[in-house]
Amino acid sequence: VDAEIIAVGSELLTPFRLDTNSLYLTGKLNALGIEVRFKTVVGDDRLRLKEVFQAALERSDLVILTGGLGPTEDDVNREVAAEVLGRPLVEVQEIRRRLEERFARIGRTMAGNNLRQAQVPEGAEWLDNTKGTAPGLWLEHDGVRIILLPGPPHELEAMFESVCLPRLERLSDGQRLRTRIYKVVGLPESEVDQRIAPATTQSTNPATTVLAVSGAIEVHLRARAATHQEADALLAGLGDKIEAALGDHVFSTHGESLEEVVGMYLVMKQKTVAVAESCTGGLVSERLTRVPGSSSFFLGGAVCYSDELKTRLAAVSAALIEANGAVSKPVAQAMAEGIREWTGASIGVGITGIAGPGGGTADKPVGLVYVSIADDRGTQVREFRFPGDRERIRTWASVAALELIRRRVRT
Amino acid sequence: VDAEIIAVGSELLTPFRLDTNSLYLTGKLNALGIEVRFKTVVGDDRLRLKEVFQAALERSDLVILTGGLGPTEDDVNREVAAEVLGRPLVEVQEIRRRLEERFARIGRTMAGNNLRQAQVPEGAEWLDNTKGTAPGLWLEHDGVRIILLPGPPHELEAMFESVCLPRLERLSDGQRLRTRIYKVVGLPESEVDQRIAPATTQSTNPATTVLAVSGAIEVHLRARAATHQEADALLAGLGDKIEAALGDHVFSTHGESLEEVVGMYLVMKQKTVAVAESCTGGLVSERLTRVPGSSSFFLGGAVCYSDELKTRLAAVSAALIEANGAVSKPVAQAMAEGIREWTGASIGVGITGIAGPGGGTADKPVGLVYVSIADDRGTQVREFRFPGDRERIRTWASVAALELIRRRVRT
Repeated sequence: VDAEIIAVGSELLTPFRLDTNSLYLTGKLNALGIEVRFKTVVGDDRLRLKEVFQAALERSDLVILTGGLGPTEDDVNREVAAEVLGRPLVEVQEIRRRLEERFARIGRTMAGNNLRQAQVPEGAEWLDNTKGTAPGLWLEHDGVRIILLPGPPHELEAMFESVCLPRLERLSDGQRLRTRIYKVVGLPESEVDQRIAPATTQSTNPATTVLAVSGAIEVHLRARAATHQEADALLAGLGDKIEAALGDHVFSTHGESLEEVVGMYLVMKQKTVAVAESCTGGLVSERLTRVPGSSSFFLGGAVCYSDELKTRLAAVSAALIEANGAVSKPVAQAMAEGIREWTGASIGVGITGIAGPGGGTADKPVGLVYVSIADDRGTQVREFRFPGDRERIRTWASVAALELIRRRVRT
Repeated sequence: VDAEIIAVGSELLTPFRLDTNSLYLTGKLNALGIEVRFKTVVGDDRLRLKEVFQAALERSDLVILTGGLGPTEDDVNREVAAEVLGRPLVEVQEIRRRLEERFARIGRTMAGNNLRQAQVPEGAEWLDNTKGTAPGLWLEHDGVRIILLPGPPHELEAMFESVCLPRLERLSDGQRLRTRIYKVVGLPESEVDQRIAPATTQSTNPATTVLAVSGAIEVHLRARAATHQEADALLAGLGDKIEAALGDHVFSTHGESLEEVVGMYLVMKQKTVAVAESCTGGLVSERLTRVPGSSSFFLGGAVCYSDELKTRLAAVSAALIEANGAVSKPVAQAMAEGIREWTGASIGVGITGIAGPGGGTADKPVGLVYVSIADDRGTQVREFRFPGDRERIRTWASVAALELIRRRVRT
């Protein structure tokens, strides 16, 4: 069963609003093994909606329209559905009665346009709206299921959950969909792709998507089978090959973020960490403390933007900065060792670099970052040259630092 | 001129990802008076994309495809465009040369699949990608403008801004759309709404949207008129009323972030700031250092997660913590004063609180946060009780801290 979602509403074609209902619907449909193949956003415009709805009927087994069911003139979904399907609109007495009751209950007279909501295309079943006035609609036409849902998310979700899900379960072809996400660090997207290609290009089930997400690469697998167990087995089969191809660059297989993985290792190994950072400005500390319970492994950090603070907060000697420059291997190293000693953490991390846009030289360009890590086994320091703007350089640098911690505590 | 946006990427058809590029593009197009009539999301699937692209060519004057330009097998936009338009793919030597250069510069060998990015449909102009490898494409075909842009937002935005906007400006028709964004802090959304309602409900041009965005409330105005000047005059008319209604809660009228505004004031007043933070874990330092040039006003910060580090990094006495608890007014105050003295900054900020999910008590529940600010005029401390989860509490706390700095330096 292939599904398609059409979100109707002119506000969704402004710069201020996204169609978020489709995320909810996609999650629920996927769990039943139903894939969403197209999502379209169209304004409150009869002609344009007609065209989009017509195309959907021709290519999808299940078409869900959201929005456009309210009482006002620009709510056109009922009329357009009736017209495209060639069915007249008929008034449903029960809906009318409920509308009148509802208005009586809140002591308001019902504006006449509310009666539009009692009109349904002939043969449609109407779906009770427990959170609002506009009923939904369920139609079957030439083998295609068509569902019209109200736009407000809490109305849509209540209606979908209580009425649509049980029905869709009955007609889902038994197919189940399961997903797995491999998160990878330390390899560019093109290399991830090349390494996994021998396994993934031969596989249509699971299907694979590779994407870059804030400094990491994600490999998404989606498998479909008759049962969740079988789908999981398919995921495991391809997943093993992917893990073999990417090795220890894979840091997460169940959606955990890099900082969560680092936190887990630190807790497991009963280690603590402290961070002295310059160009990342607190980002590494901030990421580590996103993790609930981080107080058990994160002691604290120093954001040493000025040279003086590198000396005062991380015990880096002024002479060392003078001799090498603030952005240098020895200073990164001294920051890592200094913050470790200062705080008594098992692991100290030092980061210094040039995030730009200003401050770069031919010798030390924007993007040059040194990351150092110190523990009882010694101090390591790495040089990076990150491309991109200030935000990206800071993101990459934070990923590099977290990854160095991961590698240090894993073994 | 009517535009249509097609976002390509299977990940956009999962429950995990929304097409956010379309918001940026819609904003920019609207500013030129170009309305977006359809947005479609389709997977990395040749046949389905072909169908959607074909339909777009028939109904729109401007078709923008996003994503699908990378080096991997599932990046199909180049091929599909070539096929639908009936043009062969040809290799562009200049793109190839640049790709090779780029890889040489970062000291990596180029995987062969990267060469796919040098293939363009015959007659297409390629658009330089200053932030990544995949070039964009600009085509004209039977009177329709077709633009292919890379999916990563920072690449797309840089390319659109520098190359596409100037060209589109030349084609746009008389109507001009202008927007203005008022950013508001310290008032709940419902109160913002109530205060501005007398002005906004009578106005259809400009149209108004109110929305909550990461700890601030934004009021968006959109005006259309024959010229930018006239549209701006409409914006100014309604804008004056909105500013009067919201007073000094408005911190930004031209899109600046709260940290940018704070940075501007600090530079203007030649003040420096240092931050000692606990529950925000570095977020306030991180936000301040997002601002390019922040080294001129931000000296540094201490992330004092453990009580001991509050003593060592921010000079908070152990006795004070013992007597009041780490989450208390006196400790926040001592952190602000301590970090100020330690660093020699004009302004010291101290933040301590309980971000959750654990660590709350009946007396000191999750969401309790103290923010203190110290300068030569004295020390101020405020208590907050924020709702929501860990992430939201940290965001609110960082907004509260930045807002306290803003109010202190503004006067």
